[in-house]
Amino acid sequence: MMEALRKAIEAQGVGIGDSIVKVDSFLNHRIDVALSTEMGRALAEAFAEDGVELVLTAEASGIAVGLTTAQALGNVPLVFAKKGTPLNVGPNVYTANVYSFTKQVMNTIRVDRSYLPEGTRVLIVDDFLANGEAVEGLRSLVEQAGCTLVGVGICVEKGFQQGGQRLRASGVKYVPLAVVDAIENGKIVLREA
Amino acid sequence: MMEALRKAIEAQGVGIGDSIVKVDSFLNHRIDVALSTEMGRALAEAFAEDGVELVLTAEASGIAVGLTTAQALGNVPLVFAKKGTPLNVGPNVYTANVYSFTKQVMNTIRVDRSYLPEGTRVLIVDDFLANGEAVEGLRSLVEQAGCTLVGVGICVEKGFQQGGQRLRASGVKYVPLAVVDAIENGKIVLREA
Repeated sequence: MMEALRKAIEAQGVGIGDSIVKVDSFLNHRIDVALSTEMGRALAEAFAEDGVELVLTAEASGIAVGLTTAQALGNVPLVFAKKGTPLNVGPNVYTANVYSFTKQVMNTIRVDRSYLPEGTRVLIVDDFLANGEAVEGLRSLVEQAGCTLVGVGICVEKGFQQGGQRLRASGVKYVPLAVVDAIENGKIVLREA
Repeated sequence: MMEALRKAIEAQGVGIGDSIVKVDSFLNHRIDVALSTEMGRALAEAFAEDGVELVLTAEASGIAVGLTTAQALGNVPLVFAKKGTPLNVGPNVYTANVYSFTKQVMNTIRVDRSYLPEGTRVLIVDDFLANGEAVEGLRSLVEQAGCTLVGVGICVEKGFQQGGQRLRASGVKYVPLAVVDAIENGKIVLREA
């Protein structure tokens, strides 16, 4: 558990209903740049021994922490999967379907094949993990490309949803910087380290 | 004109037809993280005397250089405007319409009002400037919020389209790191410094 992130969640996070964790004042709309840089360092440290050659994330809100993680890993390239399928997508892309529970729609994410060279050691990074659909989509892109997945780094896991369990059960190295265990009367309850 | 960016455009950029500048191998799909960091430093230097308090960009491809610029400006906050209008947008957002010539659709961008406090000195940053619709949308958000626009920083201007002229004519401080003057037989012709 990363202390600076825990403090930011406690100070600025808002719990809505029993499942919405609103942290867009520092994570995914307004970005606390120092905190984002520090989160990137923490993720880079967690995967420092894993020979990461490329960081993969999904637009839009994974880009900031993807970038700071890539910086802290010695400026490895960052690739962000794009959403949607424009008319001019040819055979030169890998695609995966990602269901959004929030918006209740199926989205397609895609990466140009040339940006995921076969055999590359890839770290997946994202800002949030809820049901894990986005990460599963990114894992599919990594597999299609014949890359090696070295791990998954997440800023905030919603521990009461299924994504974290699925990842842990899959055996992949998985590091969340903070886990929300519940929302109780508007208060965000964080898991102890 | 920023030398490292010029070299990247010359080495990796692809001109398609007479107007498409494809630089997604280092700028807006796969990100050259060292170059992105350097572009942020260059933009921060250009606006170092302007008292920037917040960097504003639009998702998705402005986020990387927006972040590195905000880092280099001493970790001022980065706010990125979101695209689209979800059902739950209330009166607490500023919105602007942005026409996409590429996709030939009108998009809405929005920012939560609380993240653009009145009077804030705002620097707009984006990866690309073509017809300037995105920047005009961001300027509208800044005006609606009663913020002060200190300038606009852009990585790559397509100098043969209207956005750059419009910005220069408007009198705002405007800094592009590279300007593409034309595409000739697939070759990207860069403006001299």
